[in-house]
Amino acid sequence: VIKRIAPQAEIIDITHGIAPQHVLQGALVLAETLPYMPIGVHVAVVDPGVGGPRRPIALRGGDGRLYVGPDNGILLVAVERLGGIERIVELTNPSYRLEPVSPTFHGRDVFAPAAGHLLRGVSLEELGPPLRPSGLVTLELPRAQAEPGRIRATVLAVDRFGNLRLNIAGTELGRSEIECGDLVDIEIADRRSRARVALTFADVEPGEMLLYEDSSGSLSLAVNRGSAARTLSAVVGQEIAVDRERR
Amino acid sequence: VIKRIAPQAEIIDITHGIAPQHVLQGALVLAETLPYMPIGVHVAVVDPGVGGPRRPIALRGGDGRLYVGPDNGILLVAVERLGGIERIVELTNPSYRLEPVSPTFHGRDVFAPAAGHLLRGVSLEELGPPLRPSGLVTLELPRAQAEPGRIRATVLAVDRFGNLRLNIAGTELGRSEIECGDLVDIEIADRRSRARVALTFADVEPGEMLLYEDSSGSLSLAVNRGSAARTLSAVVGQEIAVDRERR
Amino acid sequence: VIKRIAPQAEIIDITHGIAPQHVLQGALVLAETLPYMPIGVHVAVVDPGVGGPRRPIALRGGDGRLYVGPDNGILLVAVERLGGIERIVELTNPSYRLEPVSPTFHGRDVFAPAAGHLLRGVSLEELGPPLRPSGLVTLELPRAQAEPGRIRATVLAVDRFGNLRLNIAGTELGRSEIECGDLVDIEIADRRSRARVALTFADVEPGEMLLYEDSSGSLSLAVNRGSAARTLSAVVGQEIAVDRERR
Repeated sequence: VIKRIAPQAEIIDITHGIAPQHVLQGALVLAETLPYMPIGVHVAVVDPGVGGPRRPIALRGGDGRLYVGPDNGILLVAVERLGGIERIVELTNPSYRLEPVSPTFHGRDVFAPAAGHLLRGVSLEELGPPLRPSGLVTLELPRAQAEPGRIRATVLAVDRFGNLRLNIAGTELGRSEIECGDLVDIEIADRRSRARVALTFADVEPGEMLLYEDSSGSLSLAVNRGSAARTLSAVVGQEIAVDRERR
Repeated sequence: VIKRIAPQAEIIDITHGIAPQHVLQGALVLAETLPYMPIGVHVAVVDPGVGGPRRPIALRGGDGRLYVGPDNGILLVAVERLGGIERIVELTNPSYRLEPVSPTFHGRDVFAPAAGHLLRGVSLEELGPPLRPSGLVTLELPRAQAEPGRIRATVLAVDRFGNLRLNIAGTELGRSEIECGDLVDIEIADRRSRARVALTFADVEPGEMLLYEDSSGSLSLAVNRGSAARTLSAVVGQEIAVDRERR
Repeated sequence: VIKRIAPQAEIIDITHGIAPQHVLQGALVLAETLPYMPIGVHVAVVDPGVGGPRRPIALRGGDGRLYVGPDNGILLVAVERLGGIERIVELTNPSYRLEPVSPTFHGRDVFAPAAGHLLRGVSLEELGPPLRPSGLVTLELPRAQAEPGRIRATVLAVDRFGNLRLNIAGTELGRSEIECGDLVDIEIADRRSRARVALTFADVEPGEMLLYEDSSGSLSLAVNRGSAARTLSAVVGQEIAVDRERR
């Protein structure tokens, strides 16, 4: 759809692997990926509310990036990290949609056409009327806690290696007084395991679990040459307890 | 292979996710996708008969699109919807193959090279001798029935969200006198469920099943924020009964 | 990351489907694929040793291709088949990395940047100091045996069709005196089956197993319109015995 409207467009597919309906995972992947991407028109669609009252939007960020997607929070984690919102519109102009719009596939009929028209030079303002940023839907990120000797967090994502990303930054380790080299007890649902705090996979033995700061800056759990998701039977959304073993 | 022959080619990968050997699914995805794609050379390979007597073909459609693939029906659903066949040839010219041709991978050795040569301007007629359209293999689409109060259909495809596409157009709902808002009983194998006829996911509660006209115009079953395939343990090819509940 | 450094780069994604940590599978896919690819900068990252002492490298092959990846053997099967090593360097120059380098994601911070800089014309020699080829890590390929009436081999890869690639070339069939059309007994773990030696899927009945030379020149096992992996419950790394039935 984009290439028919803007034949010169170059399309980079970040992922089609977001878990169905997992808006938060989509928002986080977008926020972690965009700093490494060229400035462009960025389309993100995880859209369980398609066809309902949620609004389709496009916006320009403070760093010149353009964003297109549903108003369900998927865009805003990235936008806020990358300079905030400069201008935002609701995608209502039928000239820039594929009509008739399917009630279940706005990725094809609303979001991709908007991106295509932006890429061929249509201004954001032509796509629809302006919205106030204060009226946008935002995601509630699950809270994590770090206090001396313990961390309570939530599994935000599981990648294809079975690594578990937690909703807490590696920099919060300081607050927990848990240090590199420490052993920690992991509890998730009714499964328990033990992990070592480490910098990288190679710091632990094959088959050993490690707690580390991943490439996005978040704490993650992995098993060297194995799968933490399988070892712990863990899935996205589960709460996890990390407690330092007595030294 | 295409880029070595036609370095300027731009390649759009519609999908590598067709179920193995599922020629009909490939044919339908192609037919539903092409109307949204730029005019080009379209290669489709689901090829359980590779190495056997099935012929490799290329054809020009009435709207100027070029198609390359096996003569097993995969191309024809799309071609018939998009202007019919203008000219068709069998891919026999060894100059436009990778020799020696592997008996198991014509995608690499026959179809991709043909597409590459077409893209760099070789005429269809040079690829091999003409064939008569009447001799082509066609797919038998499973039949569906709609009569007052009931629909009998087949699951044509399951997507990664667990939505089930049926082999019956949304426009056939009229014949069944089943209307938006109605509750229907679903039976598939020995599993039963209840669904609401709706326009879009947001019209039903989370966890509720809906019967709707999907973005390709077919009737589909889905569970809002869930998976109809999992709820019904359904797979491609199963027959499904839809009966309106007494009002 | 590559497109930010070298916006004109065209990227071809061979696969993101290598089994986690399976360096040998990555090396073989690269070696089988490159002969069909344009000359370019080829990045391969299956990197269980990331963050440890394994070195990041780039090299120029005898046919002009450039390679980037970890020094764990993943590049060398391809390089050796395609003209050998002309020059090799260790990726130590911080100007051509993304700093700070994550200890767990060198694909993003070390290998992709090196590829991007090579694509925009930076010379291999600028990326770091030269290494001697004799010091590189090489993979040990599992050994296979063919003798009259029997073959002993290992499953190197399972594709999404459930076809099993063995670590033995089709040309070794001669040594086993097993011929096209023969019936063979297959034993893998404690599962047994029977297969027919054939040229292609269409040579056997649907549901029948065949032993054939696949499109990479290796012997493979498949089930026509089925899955040999499922029939034999086979996974990568298992040993397999093939014995000719008495005629």
